[in-house]
Amino acid sequence: MKKLINSVDTVLETSLSGFARAHADIVRLNNTPCYVSRQQLKPGKVAIISGGGSGHEPLHSGFVGYGMLDAACPGQIFTSPTPDQMMAAAEAVDGGAGVLFVVKNYAGDVMNFEMAAEMVTMPVATVLVNDDVSLPKDHSIGRRGVAGTLIVEKMIGAAAEQGADLAACKAIGERVNAATASMGVALSSCTVPALGHPTFAIADDEIELGVGIHGERGRATVKMQPASEIVRQLSEHLQQELNLQSGQQILLHVNGFGATPLIELHLVYELAWQYWQALGVVVSRSLVGNFTTSLDMAGCSLTVTVLDEELVRLWDAPVNTAALRWGC
Amino acid sequence: MKKLINSVDTVLETSLSGFARAHADIVRLNNTPCYVSRQQLKPGKVAIISGGGSGHEPLHSGFVGYGMLDAACPGQIFTSPTPDQMMAAAEAVDGGAGVLFVVKNYAGDVMNFEMAAEMVTMPVATVLVNDDVSLPKDHSIGRRGVAGTLIVEKMIGAAAEQGADLAACKAIGERVNAATASMGVALSSCTVPALGHPTFAIADDEIELGVGIHGERGRATVKMQPASEIVRQLSEHLQQELNLQSGQQILLHVNGFGATPLIELHLVYELAWQYWQALGVVVSRSLVGNFTTSLDMAGCSLTVTVLDEELVRLWDAPVNTAALRWGC
Repeated sequence: MKKLINSVDTVLETSLSGFARAHADIVRLNNTPCYVSRQQLKPGKVAIISGGGSGHEPLHSGFVGYGMLDAACPGQIFTSPTPDQMMAAAEAVDGGAGVLFVVKNYAGDVMNFEMAAEMVTMPVATVLVNDDVSLPKDHSIGRRGVAGTLIVEKMIGAAAEQGADLAACKAIGERVNAATASMGVALSSCTVPALGHPTFAIADDEIELGVGIHGERGRATVKMQPASEIVRQLSEHLQQELNLQSGQQILLHVNGFGATPLIELHLVYELAWQYWQALGVVVSRSLVGNFTTSLDMAGCSLTVTVLDEELVRLWDAPVNTAALRWGC
Repeated sequence: MKKLINSVDTVLETSLSGFARAHADIVRLNNTPCYVSRQQLKPGKVAIISGGGSGHEPLHSGFVGYGMLDAACPGQIFTSPTPDQMMAAAEAVDGGAGVLFVVKNYAGDVMNFEMAAEMVTMPVATVLVNDDVSLPKDHSIGRRGVAGTLIVEKMIGAAAEQGADLAACKAIGERVNAATASMGVALSSCTVPALGHPTFAIADDEIELGVGIHGERGRATVKMQPASEIVRQLSEHLQQELNLQSGQQILLHVNGFGATPLIELHLVYELAWQYWQALGVVVSRSLVGNFTTSLDMAGCSLTVTVLDEELVRLWDAPVNTAALRWGC
C-alpha cells in the first residue's frame, strides 16, 4: 500500500484539518466530537445534517455550505459516525426550525442517526437514501445509498434555504430519493489504509457490475467490455427501475469512484447521454466528476433523477460549498 | 489495461463530445479542427487561448469560460495540438483586441504555437509557463509547465476580463509565472491508452520525486516515506526557488494527478500549510483538487504563487468554467 499519509491513525484528523483550512470561508471544523458546519448559519431555517464513513470525499463535508448542508458528521474511513457527533452537530446548527438528518442506508449509519434522533431536544426528521438499484428492492437489509445522495442533499438544501419547513424538507427528500436510481461498476478495488491491502480481488480482465461504494461485491463479476456495453447495461438497470417515457426530463450524473480519469468520465457521460437520447428521454441537467468516491477505486456510477419543474428549480438554486458551487 | 473506453482511437473525440454536452451552458466544441470555446464571447476583450496534450483534464478545456480562457486546443493524449487548431480557435474567439497564447514549455507545444502565432492575422503574444522546479534552471530544454499553469491562466483571464490590453495581459502572465513554483511526486505511473501499459516502472516501496505530468522521471526515485517527509522535501525545493520571507503571502495549490483520493490531498495540504506556517509565510489563498492530472497516475504536486495585492484581486475575480467557479 502506497498512500500519502503519516499513519493510519491520523489520516482523518489531519485531512479534515486541511479541508477546513482550505475552505475556511465556507466551513468550520469542530474536533471533539467531530463535525463540519457552515460558517454562516441562517436562523429560522431547517438545519440539514448528513454524515457517514469517510473515504467518499467530497461527500459529505464538501457539500456543507449555503444551499446544501448545514453540517456533516464524518466517521472514520468506511465507518459510521457516532450519535454524539450527530447530536453535537444538531445543537450547533439548529436554527429553531428543526433538524433533518439525511442518512445513507447502511446499518451503522441508520442505527446511530436513529439514536441521535431520539436524544436531541429539537424537532427532528430523517430521510433515508437508498438509490442503488444493483440490489433487488426486497433485499434483506434494503438497498444502499450511493451517489444519488448528493442530489437528495442538494434539493433538500435548496428547499430549506427557500424557507420550506421540516415536513416539507422531508417530503422533498423522499420524493427525490424515489425519483433517483444509481448503479456502479468497479475496475479495481479500493484499499482502506487500516487494512493495507485491496478490499476485494478482481482479475486483470474483469470488472464488478453493481459494486457498492465500499467495494461491496455487486450483481456480477464479468469480463472487461467496451465502455458502450458497460454503459448500456448500467443504464438498462436504471431504466428497469425508473421506466422513463419519451419526453421525460432527467438529471444525469456520472460519478467517478476516485481513480478514473475525467477524460473517461466524460466519455461515459457521452455514451449514457446517447442511451437516453435514443429513448427520447431529455437529459436537461448534468453532473460529471468525482463526488461520491471510494478512496482509490477505479470505476464509476451512473445516477438518474427524474425531473419535474420543482426539482429543476431546486437543482438550479444557488449553492456555495467546497465541491458544488453555482449561482452564488 | 482496464479503461472505460471503446477504442484508443475514439477516446478523445467521444470524451470531448461528452464534456461539451455536459457544460453546454459554458462551452461549445468545434470538431474540425478541434477546439473548445466560450459560449459568450466579449467583443473588445483580449482573447486568451491555451492548449496542449489531453490526459490532463480538467486542464485546459475545463478552464474555458468567463474570467479565464476563451478557447482551449486539445491535442491527442500527451500529444501537442496542431497549428491549425490554434489558428481556427484564434479566428473564432478574437474580439478585436488580439490573442494571447498561454503555452506550457514542451517542445511540441512551443513549436506549434509559434507556427500558429506566425500565421494568424490578428495581433498575438505568447506567455510561456515553466513552473516545474524539479529540473535545474539551466536545463537544456528548460523547465516544464505543470500545475502552475492554471494560476497563470486564471490571473491573465481576470485581467483580460477587466479590460487589460494585450501587452498588459502578457506582462501579468509573465509576472505570475515568475512568482510560481511547482514540484510533484508520483506513487504510480499512468497508462496511456494507445500504449496499453504503464509509462514507467516503479517498485511497490518507491516513489518518484519531481515527476512530470506525463510520467517523465524526476529528480530521484526514493523509498516510500511518510507524507510529512515528502511534503517537506517538495516544499524545500519550492522555498529554494522562491526564497520566501516571513510575512509574505502565498497561494498554495495541492494538485492531484488523478488517482489519489481527496482525503489524501487535503492531508497533504494540511502538512504543506504547516511547513509555510513555521516559516511565517501566510497562506492566504488555497486550491486543493485534481486540476492538472496525468490520466490515472497516483501522486500530487505542490504549487506556490507569491501573492501581492494585484494578484489576490485577479485570483478572487469571478470565474465561471467547468472546473473553477466562484463569484458568478
